[in-house]
Amino acid sequence: MEKGQLLYEGKAKRIYTTEEENIVWVEYKDDATAFNGEKKAQISGKGRLNNQITTLLFEKLAEAGIENHFVEKLSDTEQLVKKVKIIPLEVVVRNIIAGSLAKRLGNEEGTELKNAIVEFYYKNDALGDPIVNNDHIQYLEIATEAELQKIKQTALKVNDILDPFFAERNVILVDFKLEFGVTDKGELILADEISPDTCRLWDKATNQKLDKDIFRRDLGNLTDAYEEILKRLGGVTQCSK
Amino acid sequence: MEKGQLLYEGKAKRIYTTEEENIVWVEYKDDATAFNGEKKAQISGKGRLNNQITTLLFEKLAEAGIENHFVEKLSDTEQLVKKVKIIPLEVVVRNIIAGSLAKRLGNEEGTELKNAIVEFYYKNDALGDPIVNNDHIQYLEIATEAELQKIKQTALKVNDILDPFFAERNVILVDFKLEFGVTDKGELILADEISPDTCRLWDKATNQKLDKDIFRRDLGNLTDAYEEILKRLGGVTQCSK
Ligand SMILES: Nc1ncnc2c1ncn2[C@@H]1O[C@H](COP(=O)(O)OP(=O)(O)O)[C@@H](O)[C@H]1O
Ligand SMILES: Nc1ncnc2c1ncn2[C@@H]1O[C@H](COP(=O)(O)OP(=O)(O)O)[C@@H](O)[C@H]1O
Ligand SMILES: [Mg+2]
Ligand SMILES: [Mg+2]
Repeated sequence: MEKGQLLYEGKAKRIYTTEEENIVWVEYKDDATAFNGEKKAQISGKGRLNNQITTLLFEKLAEAGIENHFVEKLSDTEQLVKKVKIIPLEVVVRNIIAGSLAKRLGNEEGTELKNAIVEFYYKNDALGDPIVNNDHIQYLEIATEAELQKIKQTALKVNDILDPFFAERNVILVDFKLEFGVTDKGELILADEISPDTCRLWDKATNQKLDKDIFRRDLGNLTDAYEEILKRLGGVTQCSK
Repeated sequence: MEKGQLLYEGKAKRIYTTEEENIVWVEYKDDATAFNGEKKAQISGKGRLNNQITTLLFEKLAEAGIENHFVEKLSDTEQLVKKVKIIPLEVVVRNIIAGSLAKRLGNEEGTELKNAIVEFYYKNDALGDPIVNNDHIQYLEIATEAELQKIKQTALKVNDILDPFFAERNVILVDFKLEFGVTDKGELILADEISPDTCRLWDKATNQKLDKDIFRRDLGNLTDAYEEILKRLGGVTQCSK
């Protein structure tokens, strides 16, 4: 497979064409951004860690029956995935109250939710990714009611798989963001990435944050935490190479 | 019926007990507030106008089969209503994009919606009335899924009644906020008020605002506009007395 033209450069990844129409080449960058791009940094090693962790998690999900875009890891920072038309929704699943939900409901971070909460945000940087309900989504023609139901169901299934997977590895899956897309065959599948950039992950024993909140809130060394996640997931860390 | 103890004083109304357990006495105040109480004024005549307009609209809705709390108008500024336990949701129905929806979706005010949009806001001044979805509402134990469905259905029915009612009187019903409550018999009914304080109402010919946005945005004389609404609805205006 060969890397073709740059199709799109986002905040965390570059997407290139390949000679196969339905396959794109993803390059994970070392760029870190937060607060809708207001805070920025280069963090050497982040691209490699997210590429490895995403690979691990997408393989795990495929095994468990969740169709997703992952095809093959190419290098430390690159992977091939099925090309999709991304549905512009950030689908957030929450097990524990943190971040914007703590603000919205006036709760302490750390409050456990008896039932997972799913939220939809309109993926639109210019609008600051506003939260939307099903009526807004219908008006925006982002997804049909049936697609939306399938997305919510799949998101909850992903949670049912990943929550215990992390727990067995002494990590609390606090919340995470998914993106879905539609393939050229019209299949709705899970896409984008699942990494410490897109999850909140807390150490089970200490509640220490092992995710992008370290960058958002200046809590220490980001790559050390991401390495720790990779290690606990059984991945090959830089240190053990 | 006699006015008893003050039960609750809100931003726009005072609620008193009566000698009947299930009936409360509502007094409409002249206080105007906006932006979660940050902007305040006394506007002589507002209480009278809202009391009269709400009376007219709740009578109209009752005729059309929408169960609501209205019992009897007592005076220019007072009415009797069934006592309910208010469900702390602001149920917003929108026919035309305005206000916070224009911001949320990046649309111009005035864009027509093919289908009405319903939104739920958690009625909580301390949190600034955040928008919530069904999962948040379940977590907060504000209403069951069945209650929520009935609330949404009823809100859309109210829209189907009031939108043409206003249109026939050359007024565009842009959007409005409803509150629901549960009676001592466990019935879920429409409560609170429907007035130019809680609706956006535009003149059909000129798009001139005839609602509380006049106060929010300093657009002129509020009571003149509310009188105009009352007149178009066929109410007895002060001027014609
Ligand atoms: N399988 C895929 N096919 C096409 N685009 C994808 C796929 N997976 C993810 N994308 C998109 O690639 C873009 C680059 O990712 P990222 O750098 O995270 O962007 P963003 O800054 O928009 O979050 C995003 O728009 C993302 O939705
Ligand atoms: N039928 C009713 N029984 C009991 N309370 C009611 C009824 N209708 C409205 N209320 C409540 O009366 C209170 C006073 O109204 P208002 O001044 O508009 O208050 P707020 O500032 O909370 O909007 C509100 O909490 C409202 O929800
Ligand atoms: Mg992204
Ligand atoms: Mg009120």
